[in-house]
Amino acid sequence: MTLPKQVTIKEVGPRDGLQNEQKWLATEDKVAWINQLSACGFNTIEISSFVSPKWIPALKDAEEVARLIERKNGVTYSALVPNQRGLERALHVGVDEIAVFMSASETHNQKNIAKSISATLPVLEEVVRGAKQENKKTRAYVSTVFGCPYEGEISPENVLSIGDALFEMDIDEISLGDTIGVANPKQVEDFLSLWQRNFPKEKCALHFHDTRGLALANIHAALTLGYTTFDASTAGLGGCPYAPGASGNVATEDLLYMLHHMGIETGLDEQAILQASAFVSKKLARKQLSHNLQVYMTDRETYS
Amino acid sequence: MTLPKQVTIKEVGPRDGLQNEQKWLATEDKVAWINQLSACGFNTIEISSFVSPKWIPALKDAEEVARLIERKNGVTYSALVPNQRGLERALHVGVDEIAVFMSASETHNQKNIAKSISATLPVLEEVVRGAKQENKKTRAYVSTVFGCPYEGEISPENVLSIGDALFEMDIDEISLGDTIGVANPKQVEDFLSLWQRNFPKEKCALHFHDTRGLALANIHAALTLGYTTFDASTAGLGGCPYAPGASGNVATEDLLYMLHHMGIETGLDEQAILQASAFVSKKLARKQLSHNLQVYMTDRETYS
Repeated sequence: MTLPKQVTIKEVGPRDGLQNEQKWLATEDKVAWINQLSACGFNTIEISSFVSPKWIPALKDAEEVARLIERKNGVTYSALVPNQRGLERALHVGVDEIAVFMSASETHNQKNIAKSISATLPVLEEVVRGAKQENKKTRAYVSTVFGCPYEGEISPENVLSIGDALFEMDIDEISLGDTIGVANPKQVEDFLSLWQRNFPKEKCALHFHDTRGLALANIHAALTLGYTTFDASTAGLGGCPYAPGASGNVATEDLLYMLHHMGIETGLDEQAILQASAFVSKKLARKQLSHNLQVYMTDRETYS
Repeated sequence: MTLPKQVTIKEVGPRDGLQNEQKWLATEDKVAWINQLSACGFNTIEISSFVSPKWIPALKDAEEVARLIERKNGVTYSALVPNQRGLERALHVGVDEIAVFMSASETHNQKNIAKSISATLPVLEEVVRGAKQENKKTRAYVSTVFGCPYEGEISPENVLSIGDALFEMDIDEISLGDTIGVANPKQVEDFLSLWQRNFPKEKCALHFHDTRGLALANIHAALTLGYTTFDASTAGLGGCPYAPGASGNVATEDLLYMLHHMGIETGLDEQAILQASAFVSKKLARKQLSHNLQVYMTDRETYS
């Protein structure tokens, strides 16, 4: 099996990891955590979401976070943006990358964005055009690609149509999401084999949740097909709203362990990430730690 | 990628899952749990260990467990046996399969069995011969195949030599163990490619621990090479003594989810296994649940 020599991990913890957290993480702790992450070697950190504070109160301090963090040269600070109003807010505080989002499932899109997929695309197009005018990078999240809590399996053809529409907007990258963590390695391989006959792999990121413990197996399947960009959250934050208490995004430190031990470079500092993971876990008083954080914590009495 | 159509899961929870548990599981609860497992469709359940109660107090009731469980037709009830004395005890209560054990690491073997590898083999040979005389199935666990807490990486050639010695004894099956959960999918693929040039795949089981979250990725790697027998513990019991609190054996229900969703048959009843997993988790007051048990428990108020 041929594996890539180098992989890019995009840290989405401060946005996707936090957006469903019940416990409020203080702005100063968010800022401290992001500053720690900046020192870990990431080239992209998604720092917050410029949606309405009513939708996601956990991220209502997006502007302050964007203003207070120390910007490190070479790091792209990204943020989620739902519409033109969100774009203006994000541009106002100098975010480097604008991430739009939609669902591959009509029902999930309707529940999440209150629009049909066809009505969502023009909104995204306007945001992407506006971002490009300001020379920002652009990314689109497509959620529920591998399964939807309402519709079950999603037709791969529907996802390809969405891919067509997004690349028509000249989007820089699409992140394909297993939002509720139901994908398996065979499905990932089947789907991506189809995807790469239509679109360049280099413009595709994979976003796996570990709800059923399959995130690393799914990433391994994608690696063997030559995909090299993966989203992850330090500490495995980002629990699924459909399964409270369950595992969230694949933990950055767990993904790192796998990649580094397979001889794949990431440019990331494992120890620094474990420290950032321990920091945010402690602030959130998390009991369910990521695998590698559990191992790391074993000998550390300071953690409580 | 070609995947097998059918896979055998051997349930090792009542032995490997419990042996490091600090909390005592009452004999009647062990028996109730094993009886539930018998109804799940397993063809093999490892019920206990006939080592000295001083070594493993959690399993000191091996004889009572073996006597009290209901034996279901078609199910092989297996037990761990360290030596001739253990064999006599196991035979006395009518165990169907005798499992011997040793380590691929000289240091780990010395610490665990207080003998060198070369001094261990004749002890195992005597047990295997005695078991075969009584028409029992035989299995050998080789631990720390993919890494040792004392020696680090283990030379694959050393493992092959141990394989030679064990198959010389005409052992029915060797279970290759990632005892401390450090293996990665590339390593698994590299090692098994070598292994299968020397020994029949059909006589090899894989035994993965999920310490770093890689058990399912490793099993997927083995599946793609055509391996079809895997050890697992309901609820993911079996924490590592070198990382207290960390994940244990791959959880039977997590493995099942992956296999069934990839269209691979196991003959096992997912719901019955989740119920058995919930039962034992509750008895042990476990806080760190398996991935699929977390999802299963989400809507169940009865669990506490």
